[in-house]
Amino acid sequence: MFNEKMHKLGSNRSVIRELFEFGKALAQKEGKDKVYDFSLGNPSIPAPSVVKESVLKQMDIKDSTVLHGYSSAQGDADVRKAVADHIRKNFGCAVDENLIYMTVGAAAALCISLKALQEDGDTFLTFAPFFPEYRVFTEMTGASLCVVPMQKDCSLNLVEAEKFIDEHTKGIILNSPNNPSGAVFGEEQIKALCALLTKKSAEYGHPIFLISDEPYREIVYDGVFVPYLMNYYDNVIVCYSYSKSLSLPGERIGYIAVSPRCTEAQELYYAVCGAGRVLGYVCAPHLFQRILVDCVDAPTDVEAYDKNRKLLYSSLTAMGYECIKPQGAFYLMMRSLEEDANAFSEKAKRFGLLLVPGDSFGACGFVRISYCVSYDMICRSLPAFEALKKSYSL
Amino acid sequence: MFNEKMHKLGSNRSVIRELFEFGKALAQKEGKDKVYDFSLGNPSIPAPSVVKESVLKQMDIKDSTVLHGYSSAQGDADVRKAVADHIRKNFGCAVDENLIYMTVGAAAALCISLKALQEDGDTFLTFAPFFPEYRVFTEMTGASLCVVPMQKDCSLNLVEAEKFIDEHTKGIILNSPNNPSGAVFGEEQIKALCALLTKKSAEYGHPIFLISDEPYREIVYDGVFVPYLMNYYDNVIVCYSYSKSLSLPGERIGYIAVSPRCTEAQELYYAVCGAGRVLGYVCAPHLFQRILVDCVDAPTDVEAYDKNRKLLYSSLTAMGYECIKPQGAFYLMMRSLEEDANAFSEKAKRFGLLLVPGDSFGACGFVRISYCVSYDMICRSLPAFEALKKSYSL
Repeated sequence: MFNEKMHKLGSNRSVIRELFEFGKALAQKEGKDKVYDFSLGNPSIPAPSVVKESVLKQMDIKDSTVLHGYSSAQGDADVRKAVADHIRKNFGCAVDENLIYMTVGAAAALCISLKALQEDGDTFLTFAPFFPEYRVFTEMTGASLCVVPMQKDCSLNLVEAEKFIDEHTKGIILNSPNNPSGAVFGEEQIKALCALLTKKSAEYGHPIFLISDEPYREIVYDGVFVPYLMNYYDNVIVCYSYSKSLSLPGERIGYIAVSPRCTEAQELYYAVCGAGRVLGYVCAPHLFQRILVDCVDAPTDVEAYDKNRKLLYSSLTAMGYECIKPQGAFYLMMRSLEEDANAFSEKAKRFGLLLVPGDSFGACGFVRISYCVSYDMICRSLPAFEALKKSYSL
Repeated sequence: MFNEKMHKLGSNRSVIRELFEFGKALAQKEGKDKVYDFSLGNPSIPAPSVVKESVLKQMDIKDSTVLHGYSSAQGDADVRKAVADHIRKNFGCAVDENLIYMTVGAAAALCISLKALQEDGDTFLTFAPFFPEYRVFTEMTGASLCVVPMQKDCSLNLVEAEKFIDEHTKGIILNSPNNPSGAVFGEEQIKALCALLTKKSAEYGHPIFLISDEPYREIVYDGVFVPYLMNYYDNVIVCYSYSKSLSLPGERIGYIAVSPRCTEAQELYYAVCGAGRVLGYVCAPHLFQRILVDCVDAPTDVEAYDKNRKLLYSSLTAMGYECIKPQGAFYLMMRSLEEDANAFSEKAKRFGLLLVPGDSFGACGFVRISYCVSYDMICRSLPAFEALKKSYSL
């Protein structure tokens, strides 16, 4: 009748979506002020004003048939140049606009990159904790995903990674700043990972690609440094999205940047174009491509998130919760007060707290708290966290 | 290194794209007024003014974090309701907004529908002439595409179709008004097709789906009637796009409507949701979802296309060319003056005429002429068509 796998993926809503729907129902029953929804990763700060200005300008000056017409499949040339200029200026590496491919957000960028790389028998690797859709996207291509177990501090577990890499390993999906942990992998870790991949590529006689999923690149705190992977390794594919940096998740705009230092970079780029075509991505939404010419350098307002982070981290640790201090993104991982984080999440619901159990992220015993919410809601939620804690010491 | 199939699909540009690029180069060399580009299907009329008004209104009144935030994966509820209301009002059939899934254009709608349906060993059928990407999208899912050969008048070849349908046939992709022929399949043909599918579904003990790819639905001439398939058959999935009707091809907005009369419609809808998830379509672009609430009933301005159609058809037939008179869309099929339409297309280039050879559409011996161009360009191109004709009578 229809594809069973698709049916299963469509009918089993993700844990996050379930929690969100539960919260909506609870708010209707108990009142909105009784629900503290920390489930979703939807930016809580508005898009920078230059976005609106640019949209209005484009709508005003551009011929409708051009503005809303098809762009070339890889994106408008001047948009790709603006993106490449931004990368060159900010990260000092030699990217090529002709190796940039505009995408319908980061999910599309990942699907297309994986589809472009995948050959029979391939596996991709990622490090726990990880974004659960990596598994869905990887398996869609016919490849499988290996997950390197989580380290206590959420740093890269390279000793374990080495055991997982074999002749079938086509690439590593890296996500820094990380969802769900908020970890940023520093230069030392990145250098060690790249050394490992260089060694293993030589050992197996084929490149192992580093696929950098970096929608949270600009959202970092305390001036922490995020190494730009193309400066450390040759076979890098960057998957980027403006969902978080410009607060435009619903507009689905991002890109793939194939490093010019990749083995056969031009041919790999063709494979990216083919994968985009095969998956039905005709072009990235054109109006939101165009605005990038004006907005690509717009600074991300991380202050609001940082204020939330500080309040939440300091309050929760003061209450006696064990938290991993986030250095980036807008997620905080907190240890569950019982072994089963699902049971803990269920219990938290009774206090109006919606916390995502970490199991699907490969972080058993933890919950993820999304703090892209209003400061006010965090303030109001603190007594609930207090009461939840108390309920475990009775 | 990377996926060979993707590489091939990305490096071999489509014939249409090749022609378009050739035209750009020729225009630079010989002057823009010497090139008559009939290659692309990019709407030549601007989006209706209500689109701009709606965008400006949305940007003005809506909270940025909501307007540009994620929508639910299937699309905003009120947007789906507006789409369903439009269908109910215009086609008098009982659709359900909870069986509508907003998509990133019609290509995504097709990919998602095919992926949702596909099981091991499945084939899909389509009628020549057909849009060549159907093959790419079908094969992406793991299924194969059977093409029923073209009839001289581009009507549905049901005698041949019956021979192609077997126990592996999962569905038929139908495209009316048709790209590239401009044909509209009338009620008699549709009834006969549906009767055949009903008979074959019973014979093989499983539903054969009718996948209606209808981005040109509103672009019809001389008051021709386009039957709404849900009124004629149970197992219908409609794939729609606002690319042509609202002249928004670059913004990638469309939908899938699963007929409530489908066998296990709700379960099939879940499979659609799963397929959208797997292919990386997080949600359809949100701003252009929102404007549909205002624009879903905006009339399509077909007058300009009709004027082009009449001029082109009457002029070419007067010159002695054999043309299939289009009843819809903005394409006209003209018989090649030599057996090999590729050679004919090559020769036409010497006269500045960019005509797409029909081979990849399953229409050997024909060229496709896209008349979504300026009336002025058609006028200026006529002497070139005359000269091309003459060159064959020397």
